[in-house]
Amino acid sequence: MSVSVEDIEAAAKRIAPAVVPTPLLHSDALDAETGARVFVKAESLQRLGSFKMRGAYNKIAALEPTVRARGVIAFSSGNHGIAVAGAARDFGVRAAIVAPADAPAVKIETMRALGAEVIAYDRLRENREEIGARLAHDRGGALVKPFDDPFIIAGQGTIGLEIAEEVGADIVMTPASGGGLASGIAVALASASPRTQVFAVEPVGHDDIGRSLAMGSMQTNEPGVRSICDALLVERPGEITFALLRQHRVGALCVTDAEVRAAVRFAFRHLKLVLEPSGAAAFAASLAGKADVAGKTVVVVASGGNVDGRLFAEIVG
Amino acid sequence: MSVSVEDIEAAAKRIAPAVVPTPLLHSDALDAETGARVFVKAESLQRLGSFKMRGAYNKIAALEPTVRARGVIAFSSGNHGIAVAGAARDFGVRAAIVAPADAPAVKIETMRALGAEVIAYDRLRENREEIGARLAHDRGGALVKPFDDPFIIAGQGTIGLEIAEEVGADIVMTPASGGGLASGIAVALASASPRTQVFAVEPVGHDDIGRSLAMGSMQTNEPGVRSICDALLVERPGEITFALLRQHRVGALCVTDAEVRAAVRFAFRHLKLVLEPSGAAAFAASLAGKADVAGKTVVVVASGGNVDGRLFAEIVG
Repeated sequence: MSVSVEDIEAAAKRIAPAVVPTPLLHSDALDAETGARVFVKAESLQRLGSFKMRGAYNKIAALEPTVRARGVIAFSSGNHGIAVAGAARDFGVRAAIVAPADAPAVKIETMRALGAEVIAYDRLRENREEIGARLAHDRGGALVKPFDDPFIIAGQGTIGLEIAEEVGADIVMTPASGGGLASGIAVALASASPRTQVFAVEPVGHDDIGRSLAMGSMQTNEPGVRSICDALLVERPGEITFALLRQHRVGALCVTDAEVRAAVRFAFRHLKLVLEPSGAAAFAASLAGKADVAGKTVVVVASGGNVDGRLFAEIVG
Repeated sequence: MSVSVEDIEAAAKRIAPAVVPTPLLHSDALDAETGARVFVKAESLQRLGSFKMRGAYNKIAALEPTVRARGVIAFSSGNHGIAVAGAARDFGVRAAIVAPADAPAVKIETMRALGAEVIAYDRLRENREEIGARLAHDRGGALVKPFDDPFIIAGQGTIGLEIAEEVGADIVMTPASGGGLASGIAVALASASPRTQVFAVEPVGHDDIGRSLAMGSMQTNEPGVRSICDALLVERPGEITFALLRQHRVGALCVTDAEVRAAVRFAFRHLKLVLEPSGAAAFAASLAGKADVAGKTVVVVASGGNVDGRLFAEIVG
């Protein structure tokens, strides 16, 4: 299974009624700080506060109507679950979301407000894939995976097409967890802007993509390492996403919690954007000088803004 | 002196190199809360964080080059000063900003970071117009008024043209202080979308526009009334702006500090926007049901996002 630019173009048509083309923002202060020409692709301003609506809607829209009618199930640390809940509501079908018990309260509340049933699990002691698969088996709903699915990857890849239409970028940096967003963007740009180098940005201690790309084989993260980036904590890359990331020579960068906090503050102060820590990871890599961007045109994907008020207040206050 | 839609069209051309057409954002949550179809014109995402760049740049760009070369002077509680500092830097000329000593620190710091000289005055004991006029006389720089100037009004009015291009609105609500933004938008829409009703939204106790429109003559505010809306505290409407607001039958609404705080929280939570309290005044009026918006298409101008981290944290935390 792979994903082509034609799949992404088809996704763009399929999701057009449900998502917005997000603005590409510029800031003199950001240019001055980085020595580059930096644009921020503000997916935090996407419907329901993150890029995840693109993949989730694409997947659910592509289901056979009779399958879709039985409802959908997702396992998610937050934004994917919100997106699945929102897309399911758009189609008038039920959604059940398997979410870690320690997910940010704002994300759980949002899923419930969208009409989803939320099933909490213990991140350290239970396996969410098993719970999701069991639920799907017992109820007959369709499982909507968070990243390792061609329709999800193609949906996220529509961001790459939008970027290529808007600006000629030397570098695109994007937060990465399972690699759905990074691989989708890489596929889109390989066709629409072949000279653009894509970087996947991960939190320190959760650099499974970076280590897997370096080793040429799938690596897993040590369990139990904490990060402020609650949406970027998976065990390993996806099979399909990893193959695409290798094929398209995606680079990898790492950021610390302190760098992410500084990026959230900078986005608040200079761009007037509310970013969640995970959504600010690529922004943090650009600010912290993790790649040589001097004089280049850089697009940073700000992937989401679903952050609890208390945490945001603690960071910017 | 008046302002025509042709002045606004000329302003749009003049300011195009220096400002961005800001996005018109939509949120399902906002629709559900208001019972209307509400769009947010996010001028907080404008260059330098507020709509003020439109008017300031238009005015400074229209100065005779020999006059402009001697530098510019402005009196401002914040965003106008930031915009004048930014536009002056774009043209490579000096800027001196007369600012109240109790203006938000983030605004004063931003003016200084843009290279402006900031002259503090006591809001309750000194007259800022006198200080500004004396400075202009002593140094020979051009005074850039905050609102009661046809070029300033025309610059702000470009927002009205953008709105009319983007959506057919029944109602447009905008924060108001001296009336430059509200009158500019009213002139633009009177021509580009005559069926649209414009409302100027003021903080309780600073409703000089509302009372002036009701009485048919210029009214002033009681001195010393506090408001969280630091950018909306002027003594009275401008002469030109008041005439335009009357001519175009602009309505007026009032909001409390509590309503503004709730709006800042809502914009944080559901739109992922950083709004300063003054910038959220019209948003607050829509959320608090200050006008009959049921079933209508409403555009709310979110005029700025330059807010101190500590205050924002206190509101959303």
